[in-house]
Amino acid sequence: MSEFRRDPLSDHWVIIAPDRESRPRGSVRHPSADGCPFCPGHEADTPPQVAAYAADGRLITRGRWQVRVVPNKYPAVQDTLPARAATRDFFETRHGIGVHEVIIDCPDHWASLRQLSAHQAALVFRAYRDRLVHWREDPRLAYGQIFKNSGPGAGATLDHPHSQLIATPVVPTQVTSELVLSRRFFRRQGRCAFCVMLERELAAGIRVVAETDQFVVICPFASQFAYETWIVPKRHGSHFEFAEDGQIEGLAVQTQNVLRRLECLLNDPEFNYLIHTAPFRSQQLPHYHWHLEVFPRLAHIAGFEWSAGDYINSVAPEQAAEQLRNAWPAT
Amino acid sequence: MSEFRRDPLSDHWVIIAPDRESRPRGSVRHPSADGCPFCPGHEADTPPQVAAYAADGRLITRGRWQVRVVPNKYPAVQDTLPARAATRDFFETRHGIGVHEVIIDCPDHWASLRQLSAHQAALVFRAYRDRLVHWREDPRLAYGQIFKNSGPGAGATLDHPHSQLIATPVVPTQVTSELVLSRRFFRRQGRCAFCVMLERELAAGIRVVAETDQFVVICPFASQFAYETWIVPKRHGSHFEFAEDGQIEGLAVQTQNVLRRLECLLNDPEFNYLIHTAPFRSQQLPHYHWHLEVFPRLAHIAGFEWSAGDYINSVAPEQAAEQLRNAWPAT
Repeated sequence: MSEFRRDPLSDHWVIIAPDRESRPRGSVRHPSADGCPFCPGHEADTPPQVAAYAADGRLITRGRWQVRVVPNKYPAVQDTLPARAATRDFFETRHGIGVHEVIIDCPDHWASLRQLSAHQAALVFRAYRDRLVHWREDPRLAYGQIFKNSGPGAGATLDHPHSQLIATPVVPTQVTSELVLSRRFFRRQGRCAFCVMLERELAAGIRVVAETDQFVVICPFASQFAYETWIVPKRHGSHFEFAEDGQIEGLAVQTQNVLRRLECLLNDPEFNYLIHTAPFRSQQLPHYHWHLEVFPRLAHIAGFEWSAGDYINSVAPEQAAEQLRNAWPAT
Repeated sequence: MSEFRRDPLSDHWVIIAPDRESRPRGSVRHPSADGCPFCPGHEADTPPQVAAYAADGRLITRGRWQVRVVPNKYPAVQDTLPARAATRDFFETRHGIGVHEVIIDCPDHWASLRQLSAHQAALVFRAYRDRLVHWREDPRLAYGQIFKNSGPGAGATLDHPHSQLIATPVVPTQVTSELVLSRRFFRRQGRCAFCVMLERELAAGIRVVAETDQFVVICPFASQFAYETWIVPKRHGSHFEFAEDGQIEGLAVQTQNVLRRLECLLNDPEFNYLIHTAPFRSQQLPHYHWHLEVFPRLAHIAGFEWSAGDYINSVAPEQAAEQLRNAWPAT
């Protein structure tokens, strides 16, 4: 059984999840499709599916799927407990309730997200949105995180392309920090800090990787990692799950393009991406602005970073943006 | 030239350090002692030394050294600029001033800290203290971080045993957070949160790895990483650099013992350790309590952690402490 614990000295949450220890470790399982539980024909090897999409985007319960959502077999959190604090003390704990789902991006074991058709990639992002729309109604849950780990060094334990959702009764520390700061900014300036950032970045140009009608792709000013890249919608919106179909399709295309740029420039690095969005228990917020962050995994995090909570980045985002702009001919 | 940048959306500092890009990457250099710049006889291959210790602990300027301190050849920060904010804007920057030093733990290329004599290990920790005592007088600097990266996966680029000091004009985010929380706790409860934590841990016993007259070794309640282990002095003190000789010697022994336990239990894992201490520009603080944190590097940080700023730990600290207690017969 999992448990949330609050660090009394830093206010961070930790999920203590002993059940995860039994999951396969180290390198990726199933370097071939043989025996891969995410491949078509092996559906019985995963926990029962919670959603599946046909090629035309319809939700289906059986037959040939293009995107499939299943509970994680080694979940960090469990869906089987009542909500509520377990102890409120110097050492505060909460039951490890929550949801941990896997979104299987495609039937093809050997594909990667950047190689999928635009239609297929959009289906993956639609699944992200649908799962958040579904879980935001659960009164026990406060937040849903969508992320992808690609490559063993990025934390993936299976190589079949997949993404994950973890929904929890607590709002993550990093998101809380962004919410507090952006609310403070809004109170002082009357504007969304992310909208201001986009204006500044577009005016300066030096950290812009790409711009479309819908999105700005930037290497952010204070990039923690070399070649960190954000995809930020131009239109203000706090919740990813409120995005309309056109935005979902545009985001899928831009994410594929960023991954193609990284592939060309950095020889297909391992990477993570994640979506930062507003908490479930809120409607449209004027101060928060959802976005997607991509991190290629090039350097190991070392003692300084653990100690400081701050990062040393040896590639200036201005240089990274220039290289990424030139790396791949987005037309 | 380096630059500090403040993330306007999270308040974290990032050090943009393009000069670090030229340093050797990927695997560790000098798998043999041949050509290792940290080995005796190759002193000319490092920047000029700033301190060296003889076997009897005396500071020496030449001759046979046991511990040697040199500036980092690829520094994250530079000692050559005036202090002061460079820009204070939506995008805030500061000159990347600071100090980045390497503490060479011993002459022996093949040793590791846990294998050193207690005398030699104490000399390493004395060097840490001396460097902090030295730099705390520099009015440009606010904080000094001591840390060790051991193994390429832990961020080391040289395999000769060494530690590092990075001193900066800003207090790191993680330390700021600990300072804010512990001050708030002190105001409410009139006691140091770390002292309270030690009392609780000693009473419960389940997360205690070892206890001596001077130190308590614990796997903390909200361990972010599997087998994370803290060494906390029993006597309240906010600044590591104020520790007396007996405490330095005791800390060196306890650190060696933790590393021996990790070696036995986890087959000599890569690891980081770091010392959390109070900022330079303060005298003894009633609410902060210096300590040393050891993190074996067993799992890769993945998308959830980057997204959340919170960690999933698959080994409960109670289990980790029990295993570490039994792993090595500290007598």
